[in-house]
Amino acid sequence: MERWLLPRPKAIGFVMKLKYAIIGTGAIGGYYGGRLAHAGNEVHFLFHSEYDYVKSHGLIIDSILGDFHVSPINAYRSTADMPACDVVIVAMKSTQNGQLKEMLPPLLHKNTVVILVQNGLGMENELAEEFPNTTIMGGIAFICTFRVGPGRISHIDYGHLTVGVYQNPQDEILDQIRKDFENAIVPFTIAPDLNDARWRKLVWNIPYNGLTVVLNTSTEVIMKTESSRQLVRDMMLEVVVGAGACGVDIEREYVNDMLRMTDSMKPYSPSMKLDFDNSRRMEIRTIYSNPVRIAREHGYLMSKVQMLEQQLQFLQSEMDKNEK
Amino acid sequence: MERWLLPRPKAIGFVMKLKYAIIGTGAIGGYYGGRLAHAGNEVHFLFHSEYDYVKSHGLIIDSILGDFHVSPINAYRSTADMPACDVVIVAMKSTQNGQLKEMLPPLLHKNTVVILVQNGLGMENELAEEFPNTTIMGGIAFICTFRVGPGRISHIDYGHLTVGVYQNPQDEILDQIRKDFENAIVPFTIAPDLNDARWRKLVWNIPYNGLTVVLNTSTEVIMKTESSRQLVRDMMLEVVVGAGACGVDIEREYVNDMLRMTDSMKPYSPSMKLDFDNSRRMEIRTIYSNPVRIAREHGYLMSKVQMLEQQLQFLQSEMDKNEK
Repeated sequence: MERWLLPRPKAIGFVMKLKYAIIGTGAIGGYYGGRLAHAGNEVHFLFHSEYDYVKSHGLIIDSILGDFHVSPINAYRSTADMPACDVVIVAMKSTQNGQLKEMLPPLLHKNTVVILVQNGLGMENELAEEFPNTTIMGGIAFICTFRVGPGRISHIDYGHLTVGVYQNPQDEILDQIRKDFENAIVPFTIAPDLNDARWRKLVWNIPYNGLTVVLNTSTEVIMKTESSRQLVRDMMLEVVVGAGACGVDIEREYVNDMLRMTDSMKPYSPSMKLDFDNSRRMEIRTIYSNPVRIAREHGYLMSKVQMLEQQLQFLQSEMDKNEK
Repeated sequence: MERWLLPRPKAIGFVMKLKYAIIGTGAIGGYYGGRLAHAGNEVHFLFHSEYDYVKSHGLIIDSILGDFHVSPINAYRSTADMPACDVVIVAMKSTQNGQLKEMLPPLLHKNTVVILVQNGLGMENELAEEFPNTTIMGGIAFICTFRVGPGRISHIDYGHLTVGVYQNPQDEILDQIRKDFENAIVPFTIAPDLNDARWRKLVWNIPYNGLTVVLNTSTEVIMKTESSRQLVRDMMLEVVVGAGACGVDIEREYVNDMLRMTDSMKPYSPSMKLDFDNSRRMEIRTIYSNPVRIAREHGYLMSKVQMLEQQLQFLQSEMDKNEK
């Protein structure tokens, strides 16, 4: 936390030009990275299977705010080929976070800021064990976006990004990041308390992600059916109590806000439902297991949340069997 | 409860010949009624869609204890055509219990014993409101049996029937019923406390019936997967605590007994899974809603059980939509 020991960020005149890396160019990373690039920032994108396609065709974003095309694009297959960057946005699934220990070092210089734009709880803590001197932040995307095909992303609603500091804050860089996003027409909030922001996001993520998978349905049908709507409310209240046990005060009215917000959402499949339907591993550990464990360590068992975790783990293990 | 006012049952010499009616000749009613008929008792069976088939072909039971054939058979389409009987065994789904008010009266004489061989809680109470002067008992079948086709039942494991008195006991008739079942090679126990027996059955029924539906699997896979096995145990313990709140003491070791018993069972789909797979209404009210409500009225919320109830109600309402 000895901020005065950190060198000042590289500035050109009064404008700091930050170099961005996007690790995990899926629907979220592709959208935010695409916005930054489209607004004139230097952005380097890591791709896996889509590398060849995107290298020749660029990245197309169909957005409710106007479609755009990132081409040519700084695309890479491996972080070993990428330059060190000022801001590394990690937007891959948290199921792959075990790879960050190997992937991140080529991207880091002394002042690099790493932002984990991921769902769940506990990711920053895990990363900090490997990178105790790096500036680590967490990012919470409030956005409806999905991949429609190779190099093509559809953005259908919202877009807000909230970022909070986990360790080694660098206020000036963070302020520039905020300006860069705002210039790229991404609503951007700096959360005073990352833990508070992460728990608030869980109030939504925990019921809808898992229940759309287990009940094989959509948020819309869940909301229109009395029994499942009540279950969503029960689980949200459990998460609020769990957060409270961990020292995060969320007003009960927030639950009603989330229900109303979901009522007014376009029909939408949460990311875990898309993962499940496409036989990708689900983010059970960060969205369910970590919150259940952490709340329990603070004295409260989120019983229904734990049950959903157990059901999802069952479905994941069945999925794993089928892949063998 | 004024037992001394009840006339003595009709006896021939020292042997009382009881006349039986089976209401709901599915896998359970067909098996027990078939056993009684095969052993020489007078049994009258109510059928619906299978009436014509059974009238000409009789009822075939493929049993691990030896196959047998009930033919000719006393089959009926309506209770209005049936004689009054000494013992009425109700083995239809509890979802249809609303019809009993109309169905039962032709079958009843002054001393008729009605036995509800059904799963769940609260059925006897509901029936007693309509028939306050009738002898009402509850029956709990511990049996693996299923319908394989019209007039054909397969009995693959177990067979025990436990019966307990709800109101207006008639000890001599009950003793004769016990003898009749034992003569028909059906292990038969008279439970001193029906409520205790019903809650003990719920310890098994609650986790396995609903979870095989929601997770679309079998008891065997549930038991072999760590997460779902733990969930079953969690739910069983909730039911034990719920029973305790209602004054029914079940020792915790009973949970381990149930788990071990299930480990050694043949792969089996609980009745609710069969109902769901065949688009029949599920017995959610008696197996889930009543126990959750009753335990809550006694001060304990079975939280995971309630969640399973909510999930099942969601699936039921989706099923209802598809039927419209």
